[in-house]
Amino acid sequence: MLMSTIQAGIVGLGRLGKRYASDLRWRVRGVSLVAACSLQAEELAWARSELGIAHTYLNYEALLNHQGLDAVFIVSSTSQHVPQLIAALRAGLHVFCEKPLGITLADCLQAEAVAARHPTQLAVVGFVRRFDPAYAYAKQQIAAGLIGRPFMLRSQTVDVDAVAGFQMEFVKSSGGIFHDMNVHDIDLARWFLQSEIQTVFAAGGAFKHPAFGEAGDADNVVATCVMENGHIAQFWASRTAAHGHDTQTEIIGTEGVLCVGRNAAAQRVEILDRYGVRQECVQTFYERFEQAFLLQTQDFIDCLLQGRRPALQLRDATRATQAAIALSASLFEGKGVVQTQPLNELEG
Amino acid sequence: MLMSTIQAGIVGLGRLGKRYASDLRWRVRGVSLVAACSLQAEELAWARSELGIAHTYLNYEALLNHQGLDAVFIVSSTSQHVPQLIAALRAGLHVFCEKPLGITLADCLQAEAVAARHPTQLAVVGFVRRFDPAYAYAKQQIAAGLIGRPFMLRSQTVDVDAVAGFQMEFVKSSGGIFHDMNVHDIDLARWFLQSEIQTVFAAGGAFKHPAFGEAGDADNVVATCVMENGHIAQFWASRTAAHGHDTQTEIIGTEGVLCVGRNAAAQRVEILDRYGVRQECVQTFYERFEQAFLLQTQDFIDCLLQGRRPALQLRDATRATQAAIALSASLFEGKGVVQTQPLNELEG
Amino acid sequence: MLMSTIQAGIVGLGRLGKRYASDLRWRVRGVSLVAACSLQAEELAWARSELGIAHTYLNYEALLNHQGLDAVFIVSSTSQHVPQLIAALRAGLHVFCEKPLGITLADCLQAEAVAARHPTQLAVVGFVRRFDPAYAYAKQQIAAGLIGRPFMLRSQTVDVDAVAGFQMEFVKSSGGIFHDMNVHDIDLARWFLQSEIQTVFAAGGAFKHPAFGEAGDADNVVATCVMENGHIAQFWASRTAAHGHDTQTEIIGTEGVLCVGRNAAAQRVEILDRYGVRQECVQTFYERFEQAFLLQTQDFIDCLLQGRRPALQLRDATRATQAAIALSASLFEGKGVVQTQPLNELEG
Amino acid sequence: MLMSTIQAGIVGLGRLGKRYASDLRWRVRGVSLVAACSLQAEELAWARSELGIAHTYLNYEALLNHQGLDAVFIVSSTSQHVPQLIAALRAGLHVFCEKPLGITLADCLQAEAVAARHPTQLAVVGFVRRFDPAYAYAKQQIAAGLIGRPFMLRSQTVDVDAVAGFQMEFVKSSGGIFHDMNVHDIDLARWFLQSEIQTVFAAGGAFKHPAFGEAGDADNVVATCVMENGHIAQFWASRTAAHGHDTQTEIIGTEGVLCVGRNAAAQRVEILDRYGVRQECVQTFYERFEQAFLLQTQDFIDCLLQGRRPALQLRDATRATQAAIALSASLFEGKGVVQTQPLNELEG
Repeated sequence: MLMSTIQAGIVGLGRLGKRYASDLRWRVRGVSLVAACSLQAEELAWARSELGIAHTYLNYEALLNHQGLDAVFIVSSTSQHVPQLIAALRAGLHVFCEKPLGITLADCLQAEAVAARHPTQLAVVGFVRRFDPAYAYAKQQIAAGLIGRPFMLRSQTVDVDAVAGFQMEFVKSSGGIFHDMNVHDIDLARWFLQSEIQTVFAAGGAFKHPAFGEAGDADNVVATCVMENGHIAQFWASRTAAHGHDTQTEIIGTEGVLCVGRNAAAQRVEILDRYGVRQECVQTFYERFEQAFLLQTQDFIDCLLQGRRPALQLRDATRATQAAIALSASLFEGKGVVQTQPLNELEG
Repeated sequence: MLMSTIQAGIVGLGRLGKRYASDLRWRVRGVSLVAACSLQAEELAWARSELGIAHTYLNYEALLNHQGLDAVFIVSSTSQHVPQLIAALRAGLHVFCEKPLGITLADCLQAEAVAARHPTQLAVVGFVRRFDPAYAYAKQQIAAGLIGRPFMLRSQTVDVDAVAGFQMEFVKSSGGIFHDMNVHDIDLARWFLQSEIQTVFAAGGAFKHPAFGEAGDADNVVATCVMENGHIAQFWASRTAAHGHDTQTEIIGTEGVLCVGRNAAAQRVEILDRYGVRQECVQTFYERFEQAFLLQTQDFIDCLLQGRRPALQLRDATRATQAAIALSASLFEGKGVVQTQPLNELEG
Repeated sequence: MLMSTIQAGIVGLGRLGKRYASDLRWRVRGVSLVAACSLQAEELAWARSELGIAHTYLNYEALLNHQGLDAVFIVSSTSQHVPQLIAALRAGLHVFCEKPLGITLADCLQAEAVAARHPTQLAVVGFVRRFDPAYAYAKQQIAAGLIGRPFMLRSQTVDVDAVAGFQMEFVKSSGGIFHDMNVHDIDLARWFLQSEIQTVFAAGGAFKHPAFGEAGDADNVVATCVMENGHIAQFWASRTAAHGHDTQTEIIGTEGVLCVGRNAAAQRVEILDRYGVRQECVQTFYERFEQAFLLQTQDFIDCLLQGRRPALQLRDATRATQAAIALSASLFEGKGVVQTQPLNELEG
Repeated sequence: MLMSTIQAGIVGLGRLGKRYASDLRWRVRGVSLVAACSLQAEELAWARSELGIAHTYLNYEALLNHQGLDAVFIVSSTSQHVPQLIAALRAGLHVFCEKPLGITLADCLQAEAVAARHPTQLAVVGFVRRFDPAYAYAKQQIAAGLIGRPFMLRSQTVDVDAVAGFQMEFVKSSGGIFHDMNVHDIDLARWFLQSEIQTVFAAGGAFKHPAFGEAGDADNVVATCVMENGHIAQFWASRTAAHGHDTQTEIIGTEGVLCVGRNAAAQRVEILDRYGVRQECVQTFYERFEQAFLLQTQDFIDCLLQGRRPALQLRDATRATQAAIALSASLFEGKGVVQTQPLNELEG
């Protein structure tokens, strides 16, 4: 069985898309990356020369029609996620889609509705932290009772200032700092506290880079959230760190606390010099979560090979978007305390 | 000048009062602890036998009338702080008062008003963290520009679960978890961000000990605050930690972050055994801030000897109480987002 | 060029051999693992069922004669390393050999002599730490001048007590604690201090497990060494750690110190519970160096594909064995201070 | 009883002497510093103006004859320790003497002999680390069985390069790096392993500052030692650290390891900036051991007040000097492996 192989294609070969493509080509077992699609001819040239992908397409429909394709990986820009996911499902393919699924609830719910009509195909959105060995270990230890009953989570996504300029270009399409960054912390709150975010209050500003403020976004935000079960969560997102990419999460339970990622060290080296005792930090989310991205892709392929349902469903992505919308409303629309809307009302 | 000596008295010889008395007796330069007052005869016996204090009083008025007294330290229960402070000022004495000044704004403003009528006497409320070498070093490094412009603060006061029972007895008189614990974090936000807390939202619950909930309090709370200058603050207070007393503060600036107290180690010992690589933690706030308490007392005495004004004024205590009231209203009265009231309206 | 592929075989499918085989099968680019050899039929069955290796051999000569083979990986027991390496060279194959090359200098020099007669074939012994990202980063930072001129190294190889019983079985064949464990630290001293070990003094004992003493070995040893250039090195090896596998190295220079591996944490999780603030540690050398093993194998394949000479030569392995022999003589033969013999005298 | 007071004098008011004098004046309970002696008139002026010491002497004999004196603290240059200690004993005084007692064994044994003839007087040499809370906690935890049976110790004394110039002036009088720095590590080995150092081998050099080499000393040394009971110890001393004063000790037992001082942080502040995540370090041994010096002095006074024998005897200082002599012989006289001489032969 291990010898069978999924035929996969990919759409989107930007910075992150290239990582997915390389993993699919060299590091994931049980898959062959047979086709790639991009709007940029030079990205397709890269796929041919560096990865030896024979079949490259400028047109997404052509990718979907590639003979023998089993699954497609969507790593394109956010606004394309839902339409491409729907098209792939309708073409009979399994789909893995980078987060976020969509910026609007309507988009997310539409994707869910189409997926419901293709129940034998997998449609998965990635929340990569769940596959990080540290987060996975924390989850497992909590299940084993190490910290008693968890009731609170504090989580931060902190990016290095050096990428702020890059992020500025994507403010509009990414949906802003809550959709782009805290969406991971939202998912962690749901995962560890096993409830939905109900009430939120957010604050923040463009403290270092006024341009984010002018674009209706922020460079640092914080939030306090209450879950449906009364559990509580605190978030921080920052685009302005000097030291590196610093993703951290504390899960607080009745008998202990687990801190994931408090050590942001790039590698197991300490430097003792005139600056003190120090560790240099990872600089990008990819550097921090490289292994998690690989494990996430492997898990999707293993699900296909083993006929297993993945742990993450589209509904998880919809819920994360819903909370990001509430947080954005609280801060950017000045709505103060905001309640998330029951999904069943929206689904009518 | 170093040879002159302040004649001091103390009222309140409970757990913390004994610490103050011992410091005044053995460790603070330029002061003689000549008299002590308590309602408990056995506490006065302790002062006589352990500290050699000749003059002990069951009656506070008698202490104030002690011949030659220059200053009084008030370490009694919170409800006594304001009346005892006012009486001491009227008796012509300098006053150092443990935090919090009072639970109500009216009390705080009354104390301020009386102090204003005795401008040559010092009236100081202690916020001990400002004297902790780590916090003081952070303040100094920020002033030197190490982290650029600070715009955000995250601060927590976490007590070990072992003292939860003890705290339960004081819920009513202490004013609850925001007054008792986060009041320090509030003061740090004001100190580091140089603005007043304007808007707050708090969440929390009695997640481990329902008794706190039944008493109208909580065992874990979080809050998001906006300052008048737009800066932001996040707080956490907990009564349920398994590992120790864990006070931490992050001050986030445009060019860096300072983390104070992230290392809660009791001493410079790491243990490598079957539990991993570990450090045991301080168990009480006093263990953590012993040196700060000493430095705070020394600073008050030095102010008296050198004719210097202390950095902390009664107004600082009033402001901290005001924010704690707003946080309590947000959570315990269910008021959601709460604005602090302008003090000048109240003083009207 | 990336599309060409090395045809590789492996001999030895014990614990570590299985790791090499899996890496060659799934994770290393540019290689096909086409054949495997072991004396244990069940290990060959594992290679067929888990890795899908079609060609398996109980006989090493048969492996060497496998049609189209380019290279062989030797991960058999230490006593087989030199004869198998020589046979492979004579069969016209490239060879990668797990450390140590041999326990005696005569064996090592014989291997070198045969390799010298096959100059177009690679013959490499692995010292895996050089490929660990942390050690590699330290090397690179030192080259960039971060710590000035390095003049001293302190290095330890500490194994968890749980594997002591396993190690006991291999004492005779492994050559003892200096050959088996400190051989890595020896190589690091040579690599970072760029000189040969000249004078050694070792001490130690069987402090926890007398059986090691009865077998002429020890469970904890330390040593002080002087290099030919006057630089100094200190080693520690232990078989008795409770907390995990703890490999650490400090490189001391005139302007700073680099500590590699001082953090032995298994993952980026800190636990705050009644045992303090703690991190659980990696338990085995493989868990610690998994990535290094992969990079080492990839580098060997890349050398073959790119016609590049590897950084490590057989001479490095000979030098490491020579120092391990001197350390063993110092402690186990009670010879006190021992000088290593000039190799050219031996090569006569 | 707590009310009685020791009348103390001090000889030596250099950098460290001023610290002792200030502690005796302001911070130690049960003692009055009534007299001071120095060869430097300005140091005596300091004692009068800063500490209010009424009686100051340029002549040591005059100090010893000061009316009512109970005890003298000797913090003069090393060569004066033994003659001043002997004179004080003969004057009927208790004596506390800074380490080292002497550079020669003859001096040490002479001091012991005189002390033996004054059995009712205390004669104590300070090894300040034993009073450091971290070391004391380690000792107590080991006694409680936390790490099983200790059998090995690794200890380092590392000074910041900034004080190397200062140290250079004292090379001759201090006895060199083993006497001046590793003498503390020697004492720790004796204390934790409960045996005497028997066999030593040392290496080192003047790697950064050739001037130390020209003076017959070194700026970095390492050593491996075997105790009489077969336990083992490793030492490092350095005068060239860029990051700070870095005293560390590991005590290795059959069930665990205790690391004392691995965290050299100056205070509980972590800085997250472009240099990484870092902690600034203590810069001097006094900054590191300030509290230990105070506790050590308090313990001596408490011994006097309570009629208790101190844990440290002159014999401890003699043993430490003996080991430092052996280490110096190994490295500076090129004697290789050196055995310490049985003391009873010397005492003949």
